[in-house]
Amino acid sequence: MEKDYDIAIIGSGPAGISAALTARNRNKKIILFGNKNLSTKIEKTHAIDNYPGLPHITGADMVKAFQASLDNVGIEVTEKKVTAVYAMGDYFTLQADNDMITASAVIITAGVIMQKPLPGETELLGRGVSYCATCDAPLYRNKEVAVLGFSEKEEAEANFLSEVCSKVYYFPFYKNIQSLNDSITVVTDKAIGIEARDKKRIVKTQNSEYEVDGTFVLRDSVFPGQLVPGLAIENNHIATDRKMATNIAGCYAAGDITGAPYQIAKAVGEGNIAAISAAGYLDTRK
Amino acid sequence: MEKDYDIAIIGSGPAGISAALTARNRNKKIILFGNKNLSTKIEKTHAIDNYPGLPHITGADMVKAFQASLDNVGIEVTEKKVTAVYAMGDYFTLQADNDMITASAVIITAGVIMQKPLPGETELLGRGVSYCATCDAPLYRNKEVAVLGFSEKEEAEANFLSEVCSKVYYFPFYKNIQSLNDSITVVTDKAIGIEARDKKRIVKTQNSEYEVDGTFVLRDSVFPGQLVPGLAIENNHIATDRKMATNIAGCYAAGDITGAPYQIAKAVGEGNIAAISAAGYLDTRK
Repeated sequence: MEKDYDIAIIGSGPAGISAALTARNRNKKIILFGNKNLSTKIEKTHAIDNYPGLPHITGADMVKAFQASLDNVGIEVTEKKVTAVYAMGDYFTLQADNDMITASAVIITAGVIMQKPLPGETELLGRGVSYCATCDAPLYRNKEVAVLGFSEKEEAEANFLSEVCSKVYYFPFYKNIQSLNDSITVVTDKAIGIEARDKKRIVKTQNSEYEVDGTFVLRDSVFPGQLVPGLAIENNHIATDRKMATNIAGCYAAGDITGAPYQIAKAVGEGNIAAISAAGYLDTRK
Repeated sequence: MEKDYDIAIIGSGPAGISAALTARNRNKKIILFGNKNLSTKIEKTHAIDNYPGLPHITGADMVKAFQASLDNVGIEVTEKKVTAVYAMGDYFTLQADNDMITASAVIITAGVIMQKPLPGETELLGRGVSYCATCDAPLYRNKEVAVLGFSEKEEAEANFLSEVCSKVYYFPFYKNIQSLNDSITVVTDKAIGIEARDKKRIVKTQNSEYEVDGTFVLRDSVFPGQLVPGLAIENNHIATDRKMATNIAGCYAAGDITGAPYQIAKAVGEGNIAAISAAGYLDTRK
């Protein structure tokens, strides 16, 4: 079976960019999933002094420089959220928004999640807790849902849900709502957990609780162990060896998601190694 | 005992530069041993497309960009050749030309040596085979020596020896001699090994042999196992873990010297990790 891509790279931070540039250098057919602004985390950094070759650069200028590297070799970022990666034996199937995409190898560079899962979140995943509005909205047509949004960009997802569902509660985990539809009810009382009660799901807040039919927990990244079933995790990070190989053949990881130090240079180096390892893996399988 | 430096970094390629920038970021007192042109290998590279942030850059321009990063934080390269690193328990003593320098931690980023040692070289090291003209010239005052020079810059060393020794043979391992003193005898017949014969040393060439009192084998880098006695080597490279730690406490390694892929991005990432590991090691020992 012809695969859609040789290598799918999940994450457009420095590790993903580095992996994409090197995989392209090796003539691999790649797809790079991420955000058009590449890395919100870097973009917001005041100044960086320890990335060789770009002395005392602002985060915003570094993002521009990284974009120039992608433009130079014609790599575009695909703005779809990958919510699951299934190891199928000798290839992988990725759920990216509503699409199923196949790739012979995968490099996970999805960054680190500083928060822990909410109480009940992991237990109820797939049973009234969803990470993907686009995928699961049809399940809640004319029903009531809660959206736990971890950044401004999740507001578009909530707006989309408000067109399908009869009622949307929005629980922001950040300040300053930007552009939510008027029909959405914003709850500023902090959400602290999710429970199942009969066929309903309950979002518990510090001072109250909200009964809905389903909940959407929308973060920039998915917890790695949930993203790839069977992936070995060590201290909350993906376990890799020095070749950036995980415990699953053909699946590599790089950057913050593999552990500290959370540094741009480290991420760039690991992305480079992961791409070369993935290319080598593909070449031996020919 | 107060040490001369917190961290001594050996090698001014991308791994060493990255380590120096990050160690400085962590407020460590550092010394960076290398060459004023930073990396001959990069300088001679035609174009690099996979170092994020510097799209399609020539090797020469990349060296300039790296120099700008060092200049930005006031790091100077010390042009001394480190020929030995001795682990003294809780600190290290480095032989750098004729100086003995102490440091609490060491990061080895000396690059990879593509050649193998010559037959006899390792066996006779310290017994008629020397890696350091500045250090060992006094042993051969008014005696006859052979210099096996692997790059143009070793010619200055040979010229220095010609002022001390009664006779200098020069065996170049490259084309185009630049500026050797007239008193030096250049032998273009390729040197293939070194032997001991009574008190003399014999440089064997493809078609002949030359009897001298001592030999100097002058490369850009020293073999890592010879540089640091007791250092664990794996497949001709320094063995490290994912924190870039070697088998010797306080001694880290990064870049090509730790193994393939021989890539700038990989070296930069490993230098960054090594510096953070070394800084962490120093902080726990306070």
